[in-house]
Amino acid sequence: MANYVLVHGAWHTGAELKRVASLIQAMGHDVHAPTIKGNRPGDPKTIGLAEAIESITEYLRETGLEDVILVGHSYGGIVITGVADRVLHRIRRLVYWNAFVPNDGESLLDMILPQQVAAMEALAAERKDGSIILPFLLWREAFINDGDLGIARTAYNTLNPHPMQTFRDKISLSTNPADMDVGKSYINCTEDIAASHSHPWHPRLSEKLGLFRLVQIPGSHEICFTHPDRIARAIIEAGRD
Amino acid sequence: MANYVLVHGAWHTGAELKRVASLIQAMGHDVHAPTIKGNRPGDPKTIGLAEAIESITEYLRETGLEDVILVGHSYGGIVITGVADRVLHRIRRLVYWNAFVPNDGESLLDMILPQQVAAMEALAAERKDGSIILPFLLWREAFINDGDLGIARTAYNTLNPHPMQTFRDKISLSTNPADMDVGKSYINCTEDIAASHSHPWHPRLSEKLGLFRLVQIPGSHEICFTHPDRIARAIIEAGRD
Amino acid sequence: MANYVLVHGAWHTGAELKRVASLIQAMGHDVHAPTIKGNRPGDPKTIGLAEAIESITEYLRETGLEDVILVGHSYGGIVITGVADRVLHRIRRLVYWNAFVPNDGESLLDMILPQQVAAMEALAAERKDGSIILPFLLWREAFINDGDLGIARTAYNTLNPHPMQTFRDKISLSTNPADMDVGKSYINCTEDIAASHSHPWHPRLSEKLGLFRLVQIPGSHEICFTHPDRIARAIIEAGRD
Repeated sequence: MANYVLVHGAWHTGAELKRVASLIQAMGHDVHAPTIKGNRPGDPKTIGLAEAIESITEYLRETGLEDVILVGHSYGGIVITGVADRVLHRIRRLVYWNAFVPNDGESLLDMILPQQVAAMEALAAERKDGSIILPFLLWREAFINDGDLGIARTAYNTLNPHPMQTFRDKISLSTNPADMDVGKSYINCTEDIAASHSHPWHPRLSEKLGLFRLVQIPGSHEICFTHPDRIARAIIEAGRD
Repeated sequence: MANYVLVHGAWHTGAELKRVASLIQAMGHDVHAPTIKGNRPGDPKTIGLAEAIESITEYLRETGLEDVILVGHSYGGIVITGVADRVLHRIRRLVYWNAFVPNDGESLLDMILPQQVAAMEALAAERKDGSIILPFLLWREAFINDGDLGIARTAYNTLNPHPMQTFRDKISLSTNPADMDVGKSYINCTEDIAASHSHPWHPRLSEKLGLFRLVQIPGSHEICFTHPDRIARAIIEAGRD
Repeated sequence: MANYVLVHGAWHTGAELKRVASLIQAMGHDVHAPTIKGNRPGDPKTIGLAEAIESITEYLRETGLEDVILVGHSYGGIVITGVADRVLHRIRRLVYWNAFVPNDGESLLDMILPQQVAAMEALAAERKDGSIILPFLLWREAFINDGDLGIARTAYNTLNPHPMQTFRDKISLSTNPADMDVGKSYINCTEDIAASHSHPWHPRLSEKLGLFRLVQIPGSHEICFTHPDRIARAIIEAGRD
């Protein structure tokens, strides 16, 4: 039995990972899916990356979890990297799932294309509270391309406005991921085009891990909605010793 | 129920898409598979790209089809782009299936490598009527690599000499695909090496669509012969809203 | 019925391919899995590439095999290229399976990244007999990433120290693979990250074959241990006419 902690991506909460979590639990593991600060109901949307990371670090301290397989999806990859830098002794393995992998001093916006940064800042500027929301069309075509329209709509309705500052803030790390003394895995969903077609997740971001284990499966960025069984099995393969 | 119009690739006619069409029909849709001018029995092999495009535009006008999901395979991608530029109001979504995606002023030959252009012109020079045929060895290894020799031979026997000028002509478009106000999808068969290994269909050509939905499946360029069921399902996933 | 000769990779012997060989035999073929000189029990670890190639060439001569489908895995790709250069009349098709493809004058070390060369030379320097062994952690994460820890350990225990000089020696060929007058196929396991993530097997090495047939399947570099049935079927698809 292993202790899995699943850290969601932007616009999500831990609740959207409940089906994946249940499937991993059914395979005999302990699974937690906390929500990052900034994405919980009522959270101010002005919070930054340090607070987001601290909220998950604090979750590990409060629960006293050790020997954790810490899984980060998308934006969650930045969060788990920050958490690992602070409480590495609690972590058995880091699992990045179509996730951003930051080195010291990098922000999420540093890892996407300039035209994407501009588009995201324009979206954020439309709102007054510091948050950004994804247009449905972009979500439907580029995030959940392997689902039908019904799943795309249902899933879209679960999203929450994401604190934009967490994308702008540059992470502060004492050790870059490649040098962290812990096992690392990267799960790549092969139809995930949320990042960019010619500027992909893997190997561009994955190779920043140094030595790591690759697990690939068919699926979009939002496989947690479209094929929760498939990503659950991939997490097990990525997380085992 | 949706209206699918499947536009074949070079050397083919609509007849080679009949198995795929039947499978899509069996899922409850209306399906058409017209043959592009230049590939019909008796067509002169000297026709150019404008006439090829006009023949499919005319097909949509004559049949009065609206709300069309217009699917183009390979060379057919150039044809559907031209058709969309002329009768966009009839089209609900464009689906490119390992297809060329032209911008205004581009020809098919502009989208392949110089050594491939030279090889194709040399093949065309062997014939007197303006057509080009594929050598069997190239077909067997690089086009239908996922089939056995029997399927490769049977399928090869259905091919017709293709009018070379349609590869040379530069398309005239008022709007490039990325700016067309219509849904777009790209189906990529992951073992399709007909274009080139290091100069692939996706993302090189697909990203010219701007925002699009990616669907990937295992298969060669000639999956319509080797796995018609698989490409039929992919067309449904690519074509749905 | 065809004659398959399977040539193993570095650190292996023919014995590790026995399960794959049995599955191909069960499909009605004749299968041989000889061990390259340098990897047999008691072999000196100082031998070079020419002797390694000669041992398989000699095997074909001694057994009198003709019409051979010659399959090379990884380092075995260099060996089969050398064998083909010497006894091409015995060979029906070359099948490279996540294998190195050398041109005249190239060594295995010429086909990997400088930092990998340095790491391998450092590993070799730790030993006194001319051999190199793989650290278990590298093996587990980057070679057999699709297996569980039990399979990773069991398989690791079958490995033998590999003669490092076979990696350093530049091959001498009268004809480069692209110009060899024989059918060629490349099998690419899509999760094989033993070479490097951004410096992959396919198309970087495969395209040195010129015209070839691509077969792709999910799997790691060590699929012979994790999914012998899957690689056996791929070898049949790659090897058939």
